[in-house]
Amino acid sequence: MKTLLIKDCMILTMVEGEKPFLGDIWIVDGRIAKIGSSIEEEADRVILAKNMVAMPGLINAHNHASMSLLRAFSDDLKLMDWLDKKMLPAEARMTREDVYWGTTLGIAEMIASGTTAFADMYVHMDAVAQAVLDSGIRASLTRGMVFLEDDGGRRMAEALDLIDNWTGAGDGRITTMLGPHAPYTCPPKPLQGVIELACKRQIPLHIHLAETVEEGEKIRAKYNQTPTEYLHELGMFHDTHVLLAHVVHLNESDVALLRGMRGGVAHNPVSNLKLGCGIAPVRELIEAGVTVGMGTDGAGSATTLDMFAEIKAATWMQKLKHGDPTVLPAEAALRMATIESAKLLAIDHEVGTLEAGKRADLILIDLDKPHLQPVLDIPALLAYSATGADVDTTIVNGEILMHQRQFQTLHWEEVKREATARARRLVEGL
Amino acid sequence: MKTLLIKDCMILTMVEGEKPFLGDIWIVDGRIAKIGSSIEEEADRVILAKNMVAMPGLINAHNHASMSLLRAFSDDLKLMDWLDKKMLPAEARMTREDVYWGTTLGIAEMIASGTTAFADMYVHMDAVAQAVLDSGIRASLTRGMVFLEDDGGRRMAEALDLIDNWTGAGDGRITTMLGPHAPYTCPPKPLQGVIELACKRQIPLHIHLAETVEEGEKIRAKYNQTPTEYLHELGMFHDTHVLLAHVVHLNESDVALLRGMRGGVAHNPVSNLKLGCGIAPVRELIEAGVTVGMGTDGAGSATTLDMFAEIKAATWMQKLKHGDPTVLPAEAALRMATIESAKLLAIDHEVGTLEAGKRADLILIDLDKPHLQPVLDIPALLAYSATGADVDTTIVNGEILMHQRQFQTLHWEEVKREATARARRLVEGL
Ligand SMILES: [Zn+2]
Ligand SMILES: [Zn+2]
Repeated sequence: MKTLLIKDCMILTMVEGEKPFLGDIWIVDGRIAKIGSSIEEEADRVILAKNMVAMPGLINAHNHASMSLLRAFSDDLKLMDWLDKKMLPAEARMTREDVYWGTTLGIAEMIASGTTAFADMYVHMDAVAQAVLDSGIRASLTRGMVFLEDDGGRRMAEALDLIDNWTGAGDGRITTMLGPHAPYTCPPKPLQGVIELACKRQIPLHIHLAETVEEGEKIRAKYNQTPTEYLHELGMFHDTHVLLAHVVHLNESDVALLRGMRGGVAHNPVSNLKLGCGIAPVRELIEAGVTVGMGTDGAGSATTLDMFAEIKAATWMQKLKHGDPTVLPAEAALRMATIESAKLLAIDHEVGTLEAGKRADLILIDLDKPHLQPVLDIPALLAYSATGADVDTTIVNGEILMHQRQFQTLHWEEVKREATARARRLVEGL
Repeated sequence: MKTLLIKDCMILTMVEGEKPFLGDIWIVDGRIAKIGSSIEEEADRVILAKNMVAMPGLINAHNHASMSLLRAFSDDLKLMDWLDKKMLPAEARMTREDVYWGTTLGIAEMIASGTTAFADMYVHMDAVAQAVLDSGIRASLTRGMVFLEDDGGRRMAEALDLIDNWTGAGDGRITTMLGPHAPYTCPPKPLQGVIELACKRQIPLHIHLAETVEEGEKIRAKYNQTPTEYLHELGMFHDTHVLLAHVVHLNESDVALLRGMRGGVAHNPVSNLKLGCGIAPVRELIEAGVTVGMGTDGAGSATTLDMFAEIKAATWMQKLKHGDPTVLPAEAALRMATIESAKLLAIDHEVGTLEAGKRADLILIDLDKPHLQPVLDIPALLAYSATGADVDTTIVNGEILMHQRQFQTLHWEEVKREATARARRLVEGL
């Protein structure tokens, strides 16, 4: 029996309706065994967390972690210049080892900024899985599949290999999905095949949807449909869990098509802002009963994987769009980044709130800083003033991945050296 | 002679057209004496700044620092509820000592997040000036004046006292302005009096303008003008330096009225987002030749005084508004937060860039973090990924105010204790 006791922190469980309270958390064999005030239990290790907030670890519901190698490589460019002249040529040079170290750099940033789980879509996913395994973080992994040049057979084989070989690895930390890339890269026939397979084997799907105006125009020209209608007609929202990324450009009837869907939407506010894509209809989706979580997208576009930046951006954008400061209040934004994202990864029965019986995925946030004083309202401080740098301790499955801002499972100097050398090679001459 | 040598950093001078370069900075008696590669000079103190970026300190061009006491006190409320039920009653309880400690808390946050100068408008400004003096930061101070209930005589007397008693204090760190609060709180007669006095004595003006739709409606109903037309007709843009805060709701002819003005506009992106006010016409103003800097407004609305959050918000909002990721690129946003804001405070001959002869107001930013690696583009990393927590060292007038994130002039435990006790008293029962 392995035990950890966290003492004297303000606990924000993220269970709806529960206010922050002063208390302790007792963790046994990776799960929260007790949560409450003045817990007197023996423990192998005790963390005194005075002046800290304990909350569920943040969950990044849409990422391409390997792209951390291409951080700040091509900002402030038109979308097509960014993609064609910079990202695609650099990505074409990526080896399996590059993906391992790029993912590890991304994981280092996530652990350091309080993210305990992420959903990832990329290539060389066995390398991504290995990086997840080695670092101790939790992830839902997807081999991204485009079907433009060929029948996608090799990619589908890799996708199924990932699912067969890695689902449940790391004491359940790794889960998997099937990842047709996007409506504009997946013609009807192969996409329908993926959907049927997903429904038959009950594998969740992860796909980009309606990120740009241009995507809408392309799908309109080809199929005389909106991207959402296109996916709907192929049966995507009938019988399996679907994680939809971006979902910016929806009309009213598109929103209605998503009503009742399993899974939901990963909102990517920073990427949508930085690329000038637009403001997603978050309020309308939530009102339609669709689960809306939050992700960063890759650092190639978002630059940072800090979920606190996404929380701020999400609430700011909705207040701006509706001209109303009461829209998407602090607690709702924090919920999107925790339990709602957990639902998108289909792991909300295990993580996303602090409750006895759940896996111990949690973070400690140090309030002993000028920008987090006075402590009049903890959710507001966390949503509107905190950054990833305020996270003192990151715990996944009861294992401490960072404590007092020191990595416990990663060797930062090695990560930095590998990432720097590989990044230089990838971008050389571009 | 007092000397400080900063060695082996990447230097981002913010002089237009200059790229970051590896070098040293030699500071003598508070001024930059030399800047370049391999400076071999004796120094009382040497800072080895490997893996760090040296850049000009950030300049917060619009603030009410005392309101840091009311951080996270009343978020997610309608503007009028926020103001009438929360902010005004709490502010009515503020004593001179509250203002001193509230300002000191705000200054602590600013120093900790790389801000070396700020423009402030509030009451009890002698207490604000004392806090500036004690902490070592630089500031342009303004007694805010409303003229609704009476002739404003007492406030005008306090404003002139501030100017007479404090201008030039702290080895020139304190400068002053005259502060008629806003078009909707200043009727024509007293406002014209202030403008005439400012022109006659060549005192800069600091005023809020066109923050909300409601302000426009009020001024339209009273004077059948836009707020900008109202100020223009009273002669505000003719013959003195004017610092305009917010400036969100401008039509094309309003922008034209500001063409050629002395001073310029302090953009407050986070406050404008959080209160749902709208997106300021930053690109149009810059194209019209108006200087556009950046500020936070008070922590009562913005929650944080971290200028890195403003930099992100500013560039995101412009990209969103124009649907174009090339608008307001990283370097332009960084320039707004440094040299352009320095122009607004009328101190750009002394600070805002790193150049020999200027005052040594600069910060060191530590790049040895996952979210700032690999180092492919320093301005992009600073604008899109850095936060105030990445600032290692803050220097004003050659004096080190923070080093290795430790305050050198403030006693944090005392600031926290005073701020907490006073904040609790201010908000009790509200
Ligand atoms: Zn994506
Ligand atoms: Zn203001």
